[in-house]
Amino acid sequence: MTSATSALKPKVLRLGRIDYGLSKWAEIAKYATVLDCESKTREEFFNDLKGKYKDITNISRTYQSVHQTGRFDAELATHLPTTVKSISHTGAGYDQIDPDPFTKLGIQISNITVPVEGPTADTAVYLLLGTLRNFQEGHNLTIQGEWKKGKKAAGAKLGATPHSKVVGILGMGGIGRQIRDRLVPFQFKDIIYYNRKRLTPELEQSSKYVSFEELIKQSDILVISVPLNPKTRHLISKEVLADLKPGSIIINTARGAVIDEAALLESLKSGHLGGFGSDVFEFEPQVPQELLDLPNVVSLPHMGTHAWDAIEYMEEWVAENVESYIFTGKVKSIIPDQYDMVIDPKPLLKRE
Amino acid sequence: MTSATSALKPKVLRLGRIDYGLSKWAEIAKYATVLDCESKTREEFFNDLKGKYKDITNISRTYQSVHQTGRFDAELATHLPTTVKSISHTGAGYDQIDPDPFTKLGIQISNITVPVEGPTADTAVYLLLGTLRNFQEGHNLTIQGEWKKGKKAAGAKLGATPHSKVVGILGMGGIGRQIRDRLVPFQFKDIIYYNRKRLTPELEQSSKYVSFEELIKQSDILVISVPLNPKTRHLISKEVLADLKPGSIIINTARGAVIDEAALLESLKSGHLGGFGSDVFEFEPQVPQELLDLPNVVSLPHMGTHAWDAIEYMEEWVAENVESYIFTGKVKSIIPDQYDMVIDPKPLLKRE
Repeated sequence: MTSATSALKPKVLRLGRIDYGLSKWAEIAKYATVLDCESKTREEFFNDLKGKYKDITNISRTYQSVHQTGRFDAELATHLPTTVKSISHTGAGYDQIDPDPFTKLGIQISNITVPVEGPTADTAVYLLLGTLRNFQEGHNLTIQGEWKKGKKAAGAKLGATPHSKVVGILGMGGIGRQIRDRLVPFQFKDIIYYNRKRLTPELEQSSKYVSFEELIKQSDILVISVPLNPKTRHLISKEVLADLKPGSIIINTARGAVIDEAALLESLKSGHLGGFGSDVFEFEPQVPQELLDLPNVVSLPHMGTHAWDAIEYMEEWVAENVESYIFTGKVKSIIPDQYDMVIDPKPLLKRE
Repeated sequence: MTSATSALKPKVLRLGRIDYGLSKWAEIAKYATVLDCESKTREEFFNDLKGKYKDITNISRTYQSVHQTGRFDAELATHLPTTVKSISHTGAGYDQIDPDPFTKLGIQISNITVPVEGPTADTAVYLLLGTLRNFQEGHNLTIQGEWKKGKKAAGAKLGATPHSKVVGILGMGGIGRQIRDRLVPFQFKDIIYYNRKRLTPELEQSSKYVSFEELIKQSDILVISVPLNPKTRHLISKEVLADLKPGSIIINTARGAVIDEAALLESLKSGHLGGFGSDVFEFEPQVPQELLDLPNVVSLPHMGTHAWDAIEYMEEWVAENVESYIFTGKVKSIIPDQYDMVIDPKPLLKRE
């Protein structure tokens, strides 16, 4: 049983499909009104926020729903009804949301931490192995019939093993650490990392903290795991690419725009960069065919969390953030940009 | 300096190319005659063994050299000069050699253990992640232009994560254990194994020993890591395939013929088997195109050790076995079939 603690009746607007977290959402529907957003364009969404969504208290959204509403930016913030208390995003990277305008309105934003970490790290390991060992090229040549002609490994170029390679992880948050943990048993020559803040010894474990410049200089394999924001956009610039060792490899499971993709393509074509394994691209789903067709590029179509049980866990996590706000006045996993936000928790309902 | 301890002058016949272990072989060439086998066919090889190779003491061979000599079987054994003391194979799997006829002649056989374990286990992890998460399918659809049409993950089927899956490892030798070690941080629901002999607790670690029948019954992902021999040929038969859970996955980095490939293809086509990731095939490099073209098959052209530093390590390991025989009368890593062989070590040379 529940009873109201606020004048606001919980009304949750869901942006984007729910496929697997249905039972958790069914629980929420017992004490709150849950609406699936039907607006098809940003304009229609702004209108609906004045009309049928005028008293919504919480929003949940998916990465794909950007096609319905556009980015959650300052403009969108001005159209939100004053009843909105929280926005819960179904993903780790929340670059589709500009936190500031919402923070100013006292609206809490949550993202997904734990549920995306493992599946994204799994993707990074796959890309790293595929790129380091030229597995994708070997597969393609096999399919094309080159193996049966008798060529060793179907003619795929020789790869290298972890023993001779230094892995550098750029960004040692939850995903970066999960990548590190998975890489340890592969016995790399060394695992180094750069992070805005050095980790505590218990989180750092056997990985070694270096400066950004040293990371670029020492890495044979650079693994990108930083969020995209104005500070990290094109962090891997033409100049940084030139500073990487000849023949080095970049793996990206974060966001495409952390790398200057045009400069990356040039570096790969020149032979300076030895390989690129990526789940994300700057203008995805548009990717230059020339980049995709290079034999030393292993590409995936943003599949970091493309697994049914990962999606289930993520959808439940979002629902738990909504539920947490309703009963405690605080979302469960607030975004780092709001760690310092002053919150005066005002639950909408009380569990009895 | 060295001096002879035997009437035999060390003469090593190398079958197959050496690419990276040259410096170790250059050392051997200082005290032994090293000949590169020039025979082009089995018949020519048998003739040469009576002629220019009539006093060879040690043989090294590669997997590819089977095209020059055919299998090392009872027939070939009868053609070897009585001066031959050891055969060193450049690989873990020595199914191209029938041990018995050579054991009867007192000829020691070595294979490669440590250098192949890591690179082969890396290959298994790549195949497992690719098959479990449908990454290969996602990549192919991206290359084909399906992503830019706006389909989520380019239309690739949803995969699953390790959390909901039991991995069963068939064969827990050096490679099986390296696979296990790499899989631990991925947080599978469980890691079970079957081996002819249960491992000691220190080798077993967190993996759980089960019977062969239980392994087949409980595994969501079956990883094959047994050597090919008459007992393991078609061990994964039509009946065993039928006993696997519907939707389960098989990963094979051992030898193709451990699986009845025709039955495997039928099981995949029927939808009973959910996926197959393999570096090896029963009649490789000939593989049915129908098998290669299934979207849930991730194939590699026997790339388990296709890395320059892995090959270097392997070639050095083989040279060390030759060297070990010359100076101690015993190869360094004798094959398991000869663990019980009675050896009266007769070094060919003494280091001074």
